[in-house]
Amino acid sequence: MNNSQTQTSQSLTPHASNSCGLRAAPEALLDSEQGRVDRAPLDGLAGKSILNPRQFDRRTIVALSQLAARLETRNVEMDKPLDGKIAITAFFEPSTRTRLSFESAVQRLDGKVLSVPDGQVTGIAKGESLADIGEMFNTYGDVVIMRHPVTESIDEIRRNLQRPLINAGNGSGHHPTQALIDWYALLKWRPELRLPNCPESARIHLGIIGTPGSMRAVKSFLRLSLMFLGAVKKITLISELADPVGLDLTEPIEQSPIPIDITNDAQDVLPHLDVIYVNSIAFLGDSYRNLDSRYKLDGSSQLKSDAVIMHPLARNEELSVELDDTPHNLYFAQAAGAVFLRQALLAAVLDRLNRISDI
Amino acid sequence: MNNSQTQTSQSLTPHASNSCGLRAAPEALLDSEQGRVDRAPLDGLAGKSILNPRQFDRRTIVALSQLAARLETRNVEMDKPLDGKIAITAFFEPSTRTRLSFESAVQRLDGKVLSVPDGQVTGIAKGESLADIGEMFNTYGDVVIMRHPVTESIDEIRRNLQRPLINAGNGSGHHPTQALIDWYALLKWRPELRLPNCPESARIHLGIIGTPGSMRAVKSFLRLSLMFLGAVKKITLISELADPVGLDLTEPIEQSPIPIDITNDAQDVLPHLDVIYVNSIAFLGDSYRNLDSRYKLDGSSQLKSDAVIMHPLARNEELSVELDDTPHNLYFAQAAGAVFLRQALLAAVLDRLNRISDI
Amino acid sequence: MNNSQTQTSQSLTPHASNSCGLRAAPEALLDSEQGRVDRAPLDGLAGKSILNPRQFDRRTIVALSQLAARLETRNVEMDKPLDGKIAITAFFEPSTRTRLSFESAVQRLDGKVLSVPDGQVTGIAKGESLADIGEMFNTYGDVVIMRHPVTESIDEIRRNLQRPLINAGNGSGHHPTQALIDWYALLKWRPELRLPNCPESARIHLGIIGTPGSMRAVKSFLRLSLMFLGAVKKITLISELADPVGLDLTEPIEQSPIPIDITNDAQDVLPHLDVIYVNSIAFLGDSYRNLDSRYKLDGSSQLKSDAVIMHPLARNEELSVELDDTPHNLYFAQAAGAVFLRQALLAAVLDRLNRISDI
Repeated sequence: MNNSQTQTSQSLTPHASNSCGLRAAPEALLDSEQGRVDRAPLDGLAGKSILNPRQFDRRTIVALSQLAARLETRNVEMDKPLDGKIAITAFFEPSTRTRLSFESAVQRLDGKVLSVPDGQVTGIAKGESLADIGEMFNTYGDVVIMRHPVTESIDEIRRNLQRPLINAGNGSGHHPTQALIDWYALLKWRPELRLPNCPESARIHLGIIGTPGSMRAVKSFLRLSLMFLGAVKKITLISELADPVGLDLTEPIEQSPIPIDITNDAQDVLPHLDVIYVNSIAFLGDSYRNLDSRYKLDGSSQLKSDAVIMHPLARNEELSVELDDTPHNLYFAQAAGAVFLRQALLAAVLDRLNRISDI
Repeated sequence: MNNSQTQTSQSLTPHASNSCGLRAAPEALLDSEQGRVDRAPLDGLAGKSILNPRQFDRRTIVALSQLAARLETRNVEMDKPLDGKIAITAFFEPSTRTRLSFESAVQRLDGKVLSVPDGQVTGIAKGESLADIGEMFNTYGDVVIMRHPVTESIDEIRRNLQRPLINAGNGSGHHPTQALIDWYALLKWRPELRLPNCPESARIHLGIIGTPGSMRAVKSFLRLSLMFLGAVKKITLISELADPVGLDLTEPIEQSPIPIDITNDAQDVLPHLDVIYVNSIAFLGDSYRNLDSRYKLDGSSQLKSDAVIMHPLARNEELSVELDDTPHNLYFAQAAGAVFLRQALLAAVLDRLNRISDI
Repeated sequence: MNNSQTQTSQSLTPHASNSCGLRAAPEALLDSEQGRVDRAPLDGLAGKSILNPRQFDRRTIVALSQLAARLETRNVEMDKPLDGKIAITAFFEPSTRTRLSFESAVQRLDGKVLSVPDGQVTGIAKGESLADIGEMFNTYGDVVIMRHPVTESIDEIRRNLQRPLINAGNGSGHHPTQALIDWYALLKWRPELRLPNCPESARIHLGIIGTPGSMRAVKSFLRLSLMFLGAVKKITLISELADPVGLDLTEPIEQSPIPIDITNDAQDVLPHLDVIYVNSIAFLGDSYRNLDSRYKLDGSSQLKSDAVIMHPLARNEELSVELDDTPHNLYFAQAAGAVFLRQALLAAVLDRLNRISDI
């Protein structure tokens, strides 16, 4: 028994990184702290639901990123930190990518999964309310990961649900784990951004192409970005709408010391940006709208030589494959970090950090 | 290794119970027997298919409930009783709730799952017969849990299937595990019901709103209830049909010493009932029919002060949420016990009772 | 802990074989080699993608079959050879049978599964390219098992995918694991076929009913059969088409020393065949075509007394159930061996042969 266990840990496949583009090495983020993970904010997540990016702060985001970096640099499968835990992935709005990302995270830590790939076609129907579904989930699993097309779904399922809920996207609401993943990529790319006194040379001018008001991933990313005072020196929203911000973020933006402006001229501002965040999907009621074609990025886009592009993927035509094999491509590294950030979050929420050795 | 195992058992999350309504405590059922589980009838289930409630008897139902109560009061994950076993959940009629309940039960005992969330849309097609599907299941898994819209599906798949089959609902046929779950809730609520010489004060007048002839869950519950002589003093069927019983149960009802009457006047009989069983779904050929609106239960229903309401859920309008936070609500406790009863049944059918310590 | 482990290995359910028809005993194949498995060709599969039958040779096919036979004769669950490995089953063309077969193989060896039962309806959409999906799979799992309706899908996903890919059927392309399963059944049935100097009395005249050019399973089976020189003495293709072979196999057939002829008269050739391979599904662009009714096999078919019928299943009317309970039925044994052959392949590709004791 002990022999076979030992063999396991030695022969595990090293984690794959992205196939091309920038490699955002997790070591950089760890070295900056001598490999130490800031435990206190992580311990505070035990038993908590993850619903909205506003529940985080800069210290927690950095701590989660450090833990993710630890998980990315070594195999913790032998620790089996989620042994005996069951996660329910309840996707009432199907998303194979996000569902698999969470399910991989759970299983990499040796947890188990109850999967609802498509809540709308595979049977949660017959008029059942989300509140009743939450009631039954209480004994089925230990954490519920839900995506739902309706923004208010989060409140409805929590009426009876006594387990932590992780919001994997609710209508035009939020997508907090994607925003954590985005910042994990940024912090690996430029670890100085974690510092309140970030050196001037490392500070970023961040451009966001899209409509935070109706795009939940963009909205959540912007919300977290407002927490990085001293690291984000300016934010430019690039949108065809006069007011792309939406009600949720009006107040946080007004109160933020970070200067934020809005333009509809992508070509004008692009050459000044350090980080360009782009997204293809606008969630408008029941339908999706593709981004205006004027805001597409391709090999001819005028970018700073060290500018990086981020995209939560899946992409459409707004981001050309011509950029994949260039140093502007941070989006593949961003995708490659998703499973590790989600592992970190799940281990914290399920109070199993003590099962991970050497953190 | 031993250290990490020990940590596992100590830090497991306690099982959640229902969020509101009655708590049906499993301890009550165990105390009555000094925690002892009646093993003989459980051992008799090894390798058996679970097809129809008539294959059970009162002793087996009580023994399964006691085992479920043991599983509900302590964590047996560390025993890993279903280690190395694979259950196939083959849902040709989609039911996320029932599927997840079984899959949770399997995984809580450390078994593995092959999931067919929707046999009709995800590929068992191309004209394939259930008999051929049964043939292939022989090497895929160790037990098959099937729901199917056709009553005769049970016989067809068993033509070649050599593994135990658990019927999770076959057309207008039966739903035996739901009926076991129903009685598990009743026995926890009032442990004296397990006794053939149940005290007069504990005996129940049971009212069933619905049509056992066409509602498989109701039919299976009624069939089990007939086995509780001396505990069930009277059964009243409340239905708009003159003969709601159906062919399957005509003979068992005629031969039963329990008096059974039929009424279409719910309001008249409700104040006399100790237990009211209600269900929303009538399975009529290919379609579902909702219960007549005259039989709805809500906060204005005239109930005995200590009467309890049962419902296999999912519910529609026949059972108002107004009753959720009242002591009449046994249906949430009923739902909360489902995973434990199914664990007990699976451990018995797969002959792994010896892996569960202290029973 | 050690005690419970030991119990596990002793009380595991013996593997079920087929319910009727020929039993193709794995022992026969093992005895011929004193139980020894030819490791060198298996070690050569580590980290390799399995895309096309042409990448195999006779020695590798025999070695995989021997390993499968070892796995079929004893329980290796306690070895947990795929512990810590995750397989992604990505079925863009749904096939419950094939998906479950692979998922059972993975889980029997204690690997984990990320399941995409229906890539077309459950969300990999929004215009996402297979290349991008391959990119994200890099960090989700350790091996990708894909079925896709488009032949070129294999190349597209591999653009960014850095993990081994197992082709579980690509359009009208290939289905290499099915062909390995077919030959595993043949080698168990008649172990002499593994020998280049197969005795004359054991050599087979192989008849294939169908159109290899458009039927990927038939095509892959024919491709492997060409590797068994000295064992296959003649191949007859039975088809209503003048040229059923298709471009892929024209050259291998022309270069093969095995005589191959084509006929459209099934009744004439049937009495001469030792092995009859039949398949129901012709993949023609987006639609399926059933086999011509003239080529149906039933109880009245004129077969040699020791002839065996093979079919990759699922079947339609081309193969009557009248033949199930006859010694001509090798197709149930063929199906029963599928999970074991896939276990052997996965253990080799994932470089975990060292975890299987006594091979």
